Amino acid sequence: MIKVGIIGATGYAGQEIVRILSNHPEAEVVWFGSRSYVDKKFSECFGNMYNIADDICKGEDMEALANSVDVIFTATPQGLCSKLVSEEILSKVKIVDLSADFRIKDVNRYEEWYQIKHESPDFIEEAVYGLCEVNREKVKNARLIANPGCFPTCSILSIYPLAKAGLIDMKSVIVDAKSGTSGAGRGAKVNNLFCEVNESIKAYGVTTHRHTPEIEDQLSYASGEEAVINFTPHLVPMNRGILATSYANLTKDISEEEIRALYEDCYKDEFFVRVLPAGVCPETRWVEGSNFVDVNVKKDARTGRVIMMGAIDNLVKGAAGQAVQNMNIMFGLEENMGLKITPMFP
Amino acid sequence: MIKVGIIGATGYAGQEIVRILSNHPEAEVVWFGSRSYVDKKFSECFGNMYNIADDICKGEDMEALANSVDVIFTATPQGLCSKLVSEEILSKVKIVDLSADFRIKDVNRYEEWYQIKHESPDFIEEAVYGLCEVNREKVKNARLIANPGCFPTCSILSIYPLAKAGLIDMKSVIVDAKSGTSGAGRGAKVNNLFCEVNESIKAYGVTTHRHTPEIEDQLSYASGEEAVINFTPHLVPMNRGILATSYANLTKDISEEEIRALYEDCYKDEFFVRVLPAGVCPETRWVEGSNFVDVNVKKDARTGRVIMMGAIDNLVKGAAGQAVQNMNIMFGLEENMGLKITPMFP
Amino acid sequence: MIKVGIIGATGYAGQEIVRILSNHPEAEVVWFGSRSYVDKKFSECFGNMYNIADDICKGEDMEALANSVDVIFTATPQGLCSKLVSEEILSKVKIVDLSADFRIKDVNRYEEWYQIKHESPDFIEEAVYGLCEVNREKVKNARLIANPGCFPTCSILSIYPLAKAGLIDMKSVIVDAKSGTSGAGRGAKVNNLFCEVNESIKAYGVTTHRHTPEIEDQLSYASGEEAVINFTPHLVPMNRGILATSYANLTKDISEEEIRALYEDCYKDEFFVRVLPAGVCPETRWVEGSNFVDVNVKKDARTGRVIMMGAIDNLVKGAAGQAVQNMNIMFGLEENMGLKITPMFP
Amino acid sequence: MIKVGIIGATGYAGQEIVRILSNHPEAEVVWFGSRSYVDKKFSECFGNMYNIADDICKGEDMEALANSVDVIFTATPQGLCSKLVSEEILSKVKIVDLSADFRIKDVNRYEEWYQIKHESPDFIEEAVYGLCEVNREKVKNARLIANPGCFPTCSILSIYPLAKAGLIDMKSVIVDAKSGTSGAGRGAKVNNLFCEVNESIKAYGVTTHRHTPEIEDQLSYASGEEAVINFTPHLVPMNRGILATSYANLTKDISEEEIRALYEDCYKDEFFVRVLPAGVCPETRWVEGSNFVDVNVKKDARTGRVIMMGAIDNLVKGAAGQAVQNMNIMFGLEENMGLKITPMFP
Repeated sequence: MIKVGIIGATGYAGQEIVRILSNHPEAEVVWFGSRSYVDKKFSECFGNMYNIADDICKGEDMEALANSVDVIFTATPQGLCSKLVSEEILSKVKIVDLSADFRIKDVNRYEEWYQIKHESPDFIEEAVYGLCEVNREKVKNARLIANPGCFPTCSILSIYPLAKAGLIDMKSVIVDAKSGTSGAGRGAKVNNLFCEVNESIKAYGVTTHRHTPEIEDQLSYASGEEAVINFTPHLVPMNRGILATSYANLTKDISEEEIRALYEDCYKDEFFVRVLPAGVCPETRWVEGSNFVDVNVKKDARTGRVIMMGAIDNLVKGAAGQAVQNMNIMFGLEENMGLKITPMFP
Repeated sequence: MIKVGIIGATGYAGQEIVRILSNHPEAEVVWFGSRSYVDKKFSECFGNMYNIADDICKGEDMEALANSVDVIFTATPQGLCSKLVSEEILSKVKIVDLSADFRIKDVNRYEEWYQIKHESPDFIEEAVYGLCEVNREKVKNARLIANPGCFPTCSILSIYPLAKAGLIDMKSVIVDAKSGTSGAGRGAKVNNLFCEVNESIKAYGVTTHRHTPEIEDQLSYASGEEAVINFTPHLVPMNRGILATSYANLTKDISEEEIRALYEDCYKDEFFVRVLPAGVCPETRWVEGSNFVDVNVKKDARTGRVIMMGAIDNLVKGAAGQAVQNMNIMFGLEENMGLKITPMFP
Repeated sequence: MIKVGIIGATGYAGQEIVRILSNHPEAEVVWFGSRSYVDKKFSECFGNMYNIADDICKGEDMEALANSVDVIFTATPQGLCSKLVSEEILSKVKIVDLSADFRIKDVNRYEEWYQIKHESPDFIEEAVYGLCEVNREKVKNARLIANPGCFPTCSILSIYPLAKAGLIDMKSVIVDAKSGTSGAGRGAKVNNLFCEVNESIKAYGVTTHRHTPEIEDQLSYASGEEAVINFTPHLVPMNRGILATSYANLTKDISEEEIRALYEDCYKDEFFVRVLPAGVCPETRWVEGSNFVDVNVKKDARTGRVIMMGAIDNLVKGAAGQAVQNMNIMFGLEENMGLKITPMFP
Repeated sequence: MIKVGIIGATGYAGQEIVRILSNHPEAEVVWFGSRSYVDKKFSECFGNMYNIADDICKGEDMEALANSVDVIFTATPQGLCSKLVSEEILSKVKIVDLSADFRIKDVNRYEEWYQIKHESPDFIEEAVYGLCEVNREKVKNARLIANPGCFPTCSILSIYPLAKAGLIDMKSVIVDAKSGTSGAGRGAKVNNLFCEVNESIKAYGVTTHRHTPEIEDQLSYASGEEAVINFTPHLVPMNRGILATSYANLTKDISEEEIRALYEDCYKDEFFVRVLPAGVCPETRWVEGSNFVDVNVKKDARTGRVIMMGAIDNLVKGAAGQAVQNMNIMFGLEENMGLKITPMFP
């Protein structure tokens, strides 16, 4: 039985790890870390966990934590994981970092977009970007996983096959993304109150959102060209879900059937990527609660563009589920163990 | 492996049975019955089921169905199950009827409230009212289960301990219930359009809702007195969930602690009933997607009344989950097999 | 032109006063008071007000305020208005207090339910409870209005005709109310975040909600008997609207037609009270944005009870609209001036 | 007093015309046309209209209608207005057509995108595209107005200043739009049920949506170049509101300040267009219920693109409000008469 510790267990992503692992046959959460709710029962913070996870939340004691568990998930704000990681810690436990600290290989680029000084740049090289469908082999032997961001997961996987095949202009890519509100976290902010979010939609972080360099880096690796993109996230009045609608100029005359065949081939062995039938657009409701990524493409002959669409549950494939997927790979378990969750509708 | 057939698989309750059984180790759906979508893939009706349940929907052929499966779930409008049930069918398969056809023992009372002629009154006596927490022993040997209604399940279980103990006036009970919109079904009706339901709440079926006699019957059995109640359902702009807030006059001076102790004792062996800590009110979000019933009580010394509260997921404990719970009991499986679902939040 | 000052202009109720008065021909807001947003433009706090109310928010300077305006609306937490009211202030301006400070005539009862010491009990006697449909004559000459609470407005007006006629047992009244989330205010609290409220319903303040004595007092005045009631509010995932479903035992055998005739007669001259056609239940969507109260009743011969239903927009008839209605009466204007707002749907 | 007839009064757009005109000092609805609800009271279809518009709905009798009113609004599906328009009708009344029949000047293009045969191509030339901010002078003398579509209104007005100034590549424009569900109409369709729309977002009509040629035509007129664009609408779980996020390549090096100055200058005399302060993104909640268009732009120096954003209420500026604005202009009234509606929040 893999012993799991979570730092930041009382945020939405942390709680989602608890939910997923509550049905995982080979792992159990033994450390519920929380800065805000120390000494409270976890189920007092999340009533769904009553009778399921009534453990007491613990504060920060890295040494005790590292000695108690096999793997640590850090579901915390940027900057925290880079502060606590060390050779000593990594010699004892594996870490899956759900923050952005180790996602960007160029530390200057990280510091510029995040406006934070990186506290442990020495570990950036070692860290593996845990987008399993792309980096599976590297994940197997990793000690430190940079779990991908929610928007990047959805954006990259829906663009990846065309980028890799060199069929789109990597300077023409525009990602227009839409997210449910759980992505904004559980902090008490006026902007995230029910009455402020409900019955409205808005763009935010236009041209400046910090997931931009992450998407660009991965698309650059995939295509072998420098990708420079526009990424615009929007806030949608729903709890969960991300939809990414991406546009790019085709660099070669290729039919929609050929493009779809490319996707089907690229993902034919992937349990979690569902290439939808021709003409069917991804919808976030169809992946809710699950680790699936639904993707599809549409070619527009009039404009010479391709529209690439993807849908995920931001808390699962965009955070907790992918973290567990990484854990499964790192510990040699079946990749989808505990993750064969049928999406819940309605 | 138990072979399962569903009549009405393409309604919300039917689909929920498919979702639940997709993670059940001892049962599998082999017959997806649907009047509206014959010859279509199930996953075309419910995109969440893509790659999970791509079976073709079948029309009505009771003989073929009865020969193919071990148990039939009828997730259909009132009147259908009573038409198809027969000694021959029941000699081959067990039936869990999610409609109201066999819930009311007095056929006149059924016909009066439902305004339908009952097509097979001979089977009413045999049918077992499948509220497992109350009728577990009878369920074990049943061939025909009347799966309880969503509102009754929530109302009865939140009132049951006090009714059984004879501590409330059974003529004073008022159940004010609130339901998510999936309870209204997947039929194309103007009243259930997004823009009609969203941002509003209303009562409906005031004094005439057909779940009234079902609640009254069960509370009468529990208390040994004739219960005559007011039941008022309300439509809430959310997908899932029922909250029942019930009021009754106490017939004896008893403290809130004593009442809560009564509940805890009554449900101490019940996996699916969670008696919440003192002062904590049930909320539908904490049971979403699960088979739990969260209950609690509050005494009002000023008025001499007790307020009894319960929350369920109407599609799970209020329909599909309870149906599977009944199946598990009937087939001698662990009662919570496939049903240890952690509620999903947010 | 009546000059209006608002203390607490940047809460939801305060902002709603601004919205309503922006179309009022005889009044204009000249003082936007706000503790949290001093020196900010009002339209920075509420983007809908851009180009409409770009005034700068002001802090607390009661003397300057009293010298600048004809009427002050206090849309503030309990305890603030009772601190600032004085003979000097009232000699200069009229006050409409949207808090509860002057609603309860018995100061001990106020202090017990609100757990606050009342700072100016001498003015309680003078204050007029501004439920215009009941106290219109007293409002005309008032200097200090206790603007009714949102739940009490809806509850009282839907029960009033039967209470006044002495046809219901005033100890049997149960009010089960449901409110949109704007009633919880604009404070940054985890419990009011989108993801916490959305897709859920819960009761709160069960047996202890502070609107209980206010409803009891007014129903006692109406009936001439002591009313002791149960009042249970619920939080609904919608922005606006209150629905009250109330139950009481009839003390006389009277038909539904007679009861409805009583309501129609009682409210025949009331612009804002709409007694709906027989059999039509109030729905909050039909009053959204307006000052209307939709009411109807249903008799249950089986139980001997009457179900009384009412719907309002909590921010309009339950707060800002009723405050403006009171202002209109106090200043001798047409009572519905600026308030002939057609409800907005969907 | 202008007498108004509405064909299609019982759809969402038709009802919104009734709502707006209920507060218009110079116009009144005297003919409530409805195919589905003939002989029913209008307020039976829309409970908000109780005591406000209790008129009986009438069927199709063009002659009687044309003799009864000064202006007809056709809030009907495509193809109906082109069937009924004639020289005789237009000699008696003005027509504001809310459908697409007269929006596209090239009849072949119309028939190709809409897959409908146009029934009165002779009137296409005369019809004025009623985007008041662009075509005000032509509207003044028009007999037949093609009221713009909801997506086109929002898209065009947020791109117009840059298109007109020749600063963007008209072949690079991508419009990613998001709409509330009232845009889908009041028809009873499974896809528009509450549980199907709630908690989800999807794209639809990708590369084929019929508002594409309308946007292209108007942007071509504005820029003097042929615009060929991608337009992708998305369905958002909210009642009202459209947000358009548009992308284009800048053809000249120009600063964000200069671009914003261009917008401010272009719209400086426009009551209904609000150019937001620098850095503030439009949000649909800030225009709800009003005829405003909130716009803003953001330049991305990294990619050489400009992001143009606009928000409207699809039922007001996107339909009924703009129709009334056109009526006001045609009848020589103040353009914003009855339309000075402060947006309602929350």
